Amino acid sequence: MLPKLKDIQEAHDRIRGFIHRTPVMCSQQINEQLGAEIYFKCENLQKAGAFKYRGAVNSLLSLTKEEASNGVGTHSSGNHAGALAKAARLLGIAAHIVMPENSPAVKKKAVASYGAAIHYCKPTLEARESSMDKLMLETGCTFIHPFDRFEIIAGQGTAVLELLEDYPDLDIVMTPVGGGGLLSGTAIAAKGINPEILVWAGEPTGANDAWESFKSGKFTPSVDPQTMADGLLTSLGELTFEAIQSHVDDILLCDEKNIAAAMRLIWERMKIVIEPSSAVPLGAMMQNQEYWKEKKIGIILSGGNVDLGNLPFNS
Amino acid sequence: MLPKLKDIQEAHDRIRGFIHRTPVMCSQQINEQLGAEIYFKCENLQKAGAFKYRGAVNSLLSLTKEEASNGVGTHSSGNHAGALAKAARLLGIAAHIVMPENSPAVKKKAVASYGAAIHYCKPTLEARESSMDKLMLETGCTFIHPFDRFEIIAGQGTAVLELLEDYPDLDIVMTPVGGGGLLSGTAIAAKGINPEILVWAGEPTGANDAWESFKSGKFTPSVDPQTMADGLLTSLGELTFEAIQSHVDDILLCDEKNIAAAMRLIWERMKIVIEPSSAVPLGAMMQNQEYWKEKKIGIILSGGNVDLGNLPFNS
Repeated sequence: MLPKLKDIQEAHDRIRGFIHRTPVMCSQQINEQLGAEIYFKCENLQKAGAFKYRGAVNSLLSLTKEEASNGVGTHSSGNHAGALAKAARLLGIAAHIVMPENSPAVKKKAVASYGAAIHYCKPTLEARESSMDKLMLETGCTFIHPFDRFEIIAGQGTAVLELLEDYPDLDIVMTPVGGGGLLSGTAIAAKGINPEILVWAGEPTGANDAWESFKSGKFTPSVDPQTMADGLLTSLGELTFEAIQSHVDDILLCDEKNIAAAMRLIWERMKIVIEPSSAVPLGAMMQNQEYWKEKKIGIILSGGNVDLGNLPFNS
Repeated sequence: MLPKLKDIQEAHDRIRGFIHRTPVMCSQQINEQLGAEIYFKCENLQKAGAFKYRGAVNSLLSLTKEEASNGVGTHSSGNHAGALAKAARLLGIAAHIVMPENSPAVKKKAVASYGAAIHYCKPTLEARESSMDKLMLETGCTFIHPFDRFEIIAGQGTAVLELLEDYPDLDIVMTPVGGGGLLSGTAIAAKGINPEILVWAGEPTGANDAWESFKSGKFTPSVDPQTMADGLLTSLGELTFEAIQSHVDDILLCDEKNIAAAMRLIWERMKIVIEPSSAVPLGAMMQNQEYWKEKKIGIILSGGNVDLGNLPFNS
């Protein structure tokens, strides 16, 4: 079942005391370059460095006492794992994390630093799921899916509630899309508050399953996706595909070149660290200039967990 | 003549409408790692990407009408040039910038984008000064020294006014020291507000003229300074040496290794882009751990203008 606006508002009340109300930043230079007014919601400055902390905290606070006492587990390419591990430590709940062995070092380090038990697996969905099943049998822990879960989607939708409280007259809101938790929560919340607002996503051309599924109306998972936006390699889930079909207005593609260019523009002009996934909406704007001239656009910068030893910048 | 607290407060009233009131950020993880409570004043998020904008605006607003109509000029390794160029454009004043030809590309680009006339010279103080003298003769422009000037020192001192408004009970404030404008203004303002507060600076070991001068009591300019902190290559001036002798409690040195480590820590944990010069105070703390345990420390992050193609991080 998908959450409604009311569920997202309740999630916000539930998690408010545990999260940062992240700032919204603007850059005059980026506005001039793009010919639009852009409001960046800085979830890279969220606890654990990504919006994922919102859904993780909401999920943990929604567990029964018995569930909480048996711990939680998940498989994740990184930010959900870090967020769940940090939130679990805060709330005194045991966390088991199944991580692909090729996850960025900075994300492995973060998860370990939050005291979670890490279980490495091959970087395939099958390996992640079978390792997770085994863990659930062994420990009785509750599986917290990284995106295809009512409480996760509701939690991720709280970021746009804050953005629209600060800037109620946006024409468009944009997020990146990987598994679709952030996009689903954002679309449900934003359309619930203002049915006129447009909700768009940016997706890497090299991992364009959401675009395929959205355009064809047929659920089409990625086969061997390739993109520097390591948070967007996953394909949509059942719930998120349903939410996106019902509430999202368009998905725009973004090439690797534009991901790197948008990332560099934000680093240079706004002096904040964002991971490649966060740059995809601005990169998609750069690639599709006809769509949004002179509009007021809110972009959710999804996270800032990036391997500083492996950046896509040449001198 | 050196400014007093009152002059710095008046400068703040003068420039308030033109600058960003920059945020103060904290990191629980950095605090745990260092065993102190650190409040970072984010001048990397200031307009033109550095605290230098404060002094530049204050200097321009203090010109007579006739001076303003003849334009201004300066020589600078980068951030002062960008700040003066941007402030001059805003106020409709012509700006001539003498820059060493080896300045970071990002700083050259920024100055050019603000519409200033750039005059390149060899990267020596002599070449900078003679090019500047020539320009003044040709154009009648007013020379705005990057640090050794009453209005510049007063302007730079306004950052700590805001920091101490937000956090009045700091035990220590720290800045980096290059030419000493920021350190001088900070020391005069902070000691004026609270004579008990300690004012420290961090300086690269490879450009330790302020440390030498401060410890020996004898003005000792650098010879061939070498450091990745490109904003701190300049030596103290007459005014700034006087201010530092009178108002600063200590200068701590920081090796290149600790500059890079502190810079990386701030990027990874706080998700903000700072230039190497900004990392020197935290690097000096990492290198001198006995000094500040369990203290409340304010650090002014001086700027965020860094060449992304040339970062001191290995994987």
